[in-house]
Amino acid sequence: MSSLPTETAARLADRFRTLGDPMRLRLLYALTGGERRAGELVEHSGGQQANVSKHLQLLHQQGLVARRKVGTAILYRIADPVVFQLCDLVCGSLGLPSLHSRPRRPAARR
Amino acid sequence: MSSLPTETAARLADRFRTLGDPMRLRLLYALTGGERRAGELVEHSGGQQANVSKHLQLLHQQGLVARRKVGTAILYRIADPVVFQLCDLVCGSLGLPSLHSRPRRPAARR
Repeated sequence: MSSLPTETAARLADRFRTLGDPMRLRLLYALTGGERRAGELVEHSGGQQANVSKHLQLLHQQGLVARRKVGTAILYRIADPVVFQLCDLVCGSLGLPSLHSRPRRPAARR
Repeated sequence: MSSLPTETAARLADRFRTLGDPMRLRLLYALTGGERRAGELVEHSGGQQANVSKHLQLLHQQGLVARRKVGTAILYRIADPVVFQLCDLVCGSLGLPSLHSRPRRPAARR
Protein backbone atom coordinates (compact mmCIF):
# COMPACT_ATOMS: atom_id res chain seq x y z
CA MET A 1 0.00 0.00 0.00
CA SER A 2 1.34 3.48 -0.85
CA SER A 3 2.67 5.42 2.11
CA LEU A 4 2.91 9.17 2.36
CA PRO A 5 6.02 10.14 4.35
CA THR A 6 5.08 11.73 7.69
CA GLU A 7 6.96 14.96 7.03
CA THR A 8 5.42 15.34 3.56
CA ALA A 9 1.93 14.68 4.94
CA ALA A 10 2.47 17.32 7.62
CA ARG A 11 3.69 19.95 5.18
CA LEU A 12 0.94 19.27 2.65
CA ALA A 13 -1.72 19.35 5.37
CA ASP A 14 -0.30 22.62 6.65
CA ARG A 15 -0.60 24.24 3.23
CA PHE A 16 -4.14 22.92 2.68
CA ARG A 17 -5.17 24.09 6.16
CA THR A 18 -3.91 27.58 5.35
CA LEU A 19 -6.15 27.59 2.27
CA GLY A 20 -9.05 26.13 4.24
CA ASP A 21 -10.49 29.46 5.33
CA PRO A 22 -12.92 31.56 3.24
CA MET A 23 -11.46 34.89 4.40
CA ARG A 24 -7.92 33.87 3.47
CA LEU A 25 -9.12 32.71 0.04
CA ARG A 26 -10.93 36.03 -0.46
CA LEU A 27 -7.78 37.94 0.49
CA LEU A 28 -5.71 35.93 -1.98
CA TYR A 29 -8.26 36.60 -4.69
CA ALA A 30 -8.27 40.30 -3.95
CA LEU A 31 -4.57 40.23 -4.92
CA THR A 32 -5.21 38.68 -8.34
CA GLY A 33 -4.84 42.05 -10.05
CA GLY A 34 -1.57 42.90 -8.31
CA GLU A 35 -0.21 44.54 -5.18
CA ARG A 36 -2.65 46.09 -2.70
CA ARG A 37 -2.35 48.10 0.49
CA ALA A 38 -3.34 46.35 3.72
CA GLY A 39 -5.98 49.05 4.26
CA GLU A 40 -7.58 48.35 0.87
CA LEU A 41 -7.67 44.64 1.67
CA VAL A 42 -9.38 45.27 5.00
CA GLU A 43 -11.96 47.47 3.32
CA HIS A 44 -12.51 45.08 0.41
CA SER A 45 -12.86 42.04 2.65
CA GLY A 46 -15.44 43.65 4.92
CA GLY A 47 -13.64 42.09 7.91
CA GLN A 48 -12.27 43.61 11.11
CA GLN A 49 -8.77 45.05 10.77
CA ALA A 50 -7.29 42.86 13.52
CA ASN A 51 -8.78 39.73 11.99
CA VAL A 52 -7.69 40.55 8.44
CA SER A 53 -4.16 41.38 9.70
CA LYS A 54 -3.99 38.02 11.44
CA HIS A 55 -4.94 36.22 8.22
CA LEU A 56 -2.47 38.26 6.15
CA GLN A 57 0.24 37.46 8.68
CA LEU A 58 -0.43 33.73 8.34
CA LEU A 59 -0.47 33.92 4.53
CA HIS A 60 2.86 35.71 4.73
CA GLN A 61 4.38 33.18 7.14
CA GLN A 62 3.29 30.40 4.79
CA GLY A 63 4.91 32.08 1.80
CA LEU A 64 1.65 32.61 -0.04
CA VAL A 65 1.93 36.40 -0.04
CA ALA A 66 4.89 38.75 0.04
CA ARG A 67 4.84 42.25 1.48
CA ARG A 68 6.81 45.46 1.49
CA LYS A 69 6.56 48.72 3.34
CA VAL A 70 6.14 51.99 1.46
CA GLY A 71 6.07 54.91 3.84
CA THR A 72 3.51 53.97 6.47
CA ALA A 73 1.64 51.55 4.18
CA ILE A 74 2.21 47.81 3.89
CA LEU A 75 1.66 46.43 0.40
CA TYR A 76 0.81 42.79 -0.20
CA ARG A 77 1.17 40.70 -3.34
CA ILE A 78 0.81 37.06 -4.32
CA ALA A 79 4.06 35.14 -3.74
CA ASP A 80 2.88 31.71 -4.88
CA PRO A 81 0.48 31.79 -7.86
CA VAL A 82 -0.02 28.03 -7.53
CA VAL A 83 -2.93 28.87 -5.20
CA PHE A 84 -5.02 29.86 -8.21
CA GLN A 85 -4.27 26.57 -9.97
CA LEU A 86 -5.29 24.75 -6.79
CA CYS A 87 -8.54 26.71 -6.56
CA ASP A 88 -9.32 26.09 -10.22
CA LEU A 89 -8.74 22.36 -9.84
CA VAL A 90 -11.05 22.25 -6.83
CA CYS A 91 -13.67 24.34 -8.64
CA GLY A 92 -13.58 21.87 -11.54
CA SER A 93 -13.90 18.98 -9.15
CA LEU A 94 -16.86 20.59 -7.35
CA GLY A 95 -18.61 21.55 -10.59
CA LEU A 96 -18.08 25.27 -9.94
CA PRO A 97 -17.07 27.59 -12.78
CA SER A 98 -13.38 28.41 -13.13
CA LEU A 99 -12.38 31.51 -11.20
CA HIS A 100 -10.40 32.98 -14.03
CA SER A 101 -12.53 35.40 -15.95
CA ARG A 102 -12.63 33.65 -19.28
CA PRO A 103 -15.28 34.70 -21.78
CA ARG A 104 -18.10 32.17 -21.75
CA ARG A 105 -18.99 30.37 -24.90
CA PRO A 106 -22.62 30.66 -25.88
CA ALA A 107 -24.51 27.38 -25.41
CA ALA A 108 -24.52 25.28 -28.58
CA ARG A 109 -27.87 25.22 -30.35
CA ARG A 110 -29.37 21.85 -31.07
CA MET B 1 -10.33 44.33 -6.97
CA SER B 2 -11.21 40.70 -7.72
CA SER B 3 -13.90 39.26 -5.48
CA LEU B 4 -14.40 35.61 -4.71
CA PRO B 5 -18.13 34.87 -4.33
CA THR B 6 -19.02 33.96 -0.72
CA GLU B 7 -20.49 30.58 -1.61
CA THR B 8 -17.48 29.66 -3.77
CA ALA B 9 -15.06 30.73 -1.02
CA ALA B 10 -16.95 28.58 1.50
CA ARG B 11 -16.96 25.50 -0.73
CA LEU B 12 -13.30 25.84 -1.68
CA ALA B 13 -12.29 26.38 1.96
CA ASP B 14 -14.31 23.33 2.95
CA ARG B 15 -12.46 21.16 0.46
CA PHE B 16 -9.04 22.51 1.45
CA ARG B 17 -9.87 22.03 5.14
CA THR B 18 -10.75 18.40 4.47
CA LEU B 19 -7.31 17.94 2.90
CA GLY B 20 -5.65 19.87 5.73
CA ASP B 21 -5.07 16.85 7.95
CA PRO B 22 -2.04 14.53 7.72
CA MET B 23 -4.03 11.39 8.60
CA ARG B 24 -6.62 12.05 5.90
CA LEU B 25 -3.86 12.64 3.34
CA ARG B 26 -2.19 9.39 4.38
CA LEU B 27 -5.50 7.52 4.02
CA LEU B 28 -6.03 8.96 0.53
CA TYR B 29 -2.52 7.93 -0.43
CA ALA B 30 -3.05 4.42 0.87
CA LEU B 31 -5.80 4.14 -1.76
CA THR B 32 -3.53 5.08 -4.66
CA GLY B 33 -3.19 1.44 -5.69
CA GLY B 34 -6.94 0.79 -5.64
CA GLU B 35 -9.70 -0.36 -3.31
CA ARG B 36 -8.83 -1.32 0.28
CA ARG B 37 -10.71 -2.74 3.24
CA ALA B 38 -11.33 -0.38 6.16
CA GLY B 39 -9.41 -2.80 8.38
CA GLU B 40 -6.36 -2.65 6.12
CA LEU B 41 -6.47 1.14 6.19
CA VAL B 42 -6.62 1.19 9.98
CA GLU B 43 -3.65 -1.15 10.17
CA HIS B 44 -1.65 0.69 7.51
CA SER B 45 -2.28 4.12 9.05
CA GLY B 46 -1.21 3.05 12.53
CA GLY B 47 -4.15 5.02 13.94
CA GLN B 48 -6.94 4.06 16.31
CA GLN B 49 -9.92 2.43 14.59
CA ALA B 50 -12.43 5.00 15.84
CA ASN B 51 -10.25 7.87 14.68
CA VAL B 52 -9.55 6.37 11.25
CA SER B 53 -13.26 5.62 10.79
CA LYS B 54 -14.10 9.24 11.59
CA HIS B 55 -11.64 10.47 8.96
CA LEU B 56 -12.90 7.97 6.35
CA GLN B 57 -16.45 9.07 7.08
CA LEU B 58 -15.53 12.72 6.45
CA LEU B 59 -13.66 11.86 3.23
CA HIS B 60 -16.76 9.97 2.12
CA GLN B 61 -19.12 12.82 3.00
CA GLN B 62 -16.92 15.19 1.02
CA GLY B 63 -16.97 12.92 -2.03
CA LEU B 64 -13.24 12.23 -1.94
CA VAL B 65 -13.65 8.48 -1.40
CA ALA B 66 -16.39 6.05 -2.35
CA ARG B 67 -17.21 2.86 -0.45
CA ARG B 68 -19.09 -0.38 -0.82
CA LYS B 69 -19.91 -3.24 1.47
CA VAL B 70 -18.80 -6.77 0.67
CA GLY B 71 -20.01 -9.22 3.30
CA THR B 72 -19.01 -7.68 6.60
CA ALA B 73 -16.16 -5.65 5.09
CA ILE B 74 -16.33 -2.05 3.88
CA LEU B 75 -14.11 -1.28 0.91
CA TYR B 76 -12.91 2.23 0.14
CA ARG B 77 -11.60 3.69 -3.09
CA ILE B 78 -10.65 7.11 -4.42
CA ALA B 79 -13.68 8.96 -5.82
CA ASP B 80 -11.92 12.17 -6.84
CA PRO B 81 -8.41 11.66 -8.24
CA VAL B 82 -7.96 15.45 -8.38
CA VAL B 83 -6.58 15.18 -4.82
CA PHE B 84 -3.36 13.75 -6.23
CA GLN B 85 -3.00 16.62 -8.68
CA LEU B 86 -3.55 19.04 -5.79
CA CYS B 87 -0.92 17.31 -3.67
CA ASP B 88 1.55 17.28 -6.55
CA LEU B 89 1.04 21.00 -7.17
CA VAL B 90 1.63 21.76 -3.49
CA CYS B 91 4.69 19.49 -3.42
CA GLY B 92 6.11 21.39 -6.39
CA SER B 93 5.39 24.69 -4.71
CA LEU B 94 7.04 23.56 -1.45
CA GLY B 95 10.06 22.10 -3.21
CA LEU B 96 9.11 18.54 -2.24
CA PRO B 97 9.49 15.67 -4.73
CA SER B 98 6.39 14.61 -6.67
CA LEU B 99 4.40 11.90 -4.93
CA HIS B 100 3.83 9.83 -8.01
CA SER B 101 6.27 6.98 -8.16
CA ARG B 102 8.02 7.89 -11.36
CA PRO B 103 11.31 6.20 -12.11
CA ARG B 104 14.09 8.61 -11.28
CA ARG B 105 16.51 9.60 -13.95
CA PRO B 106 20.11 8.93 -13.05
CA ALA B 107 22.00 12.15 -12.40
CA ALA B 108 23.63 13.51 -15.54
CA ARG B 109 27.40 13.02 -15.62
CA ARG B 110 29.46 16.08 -16.21
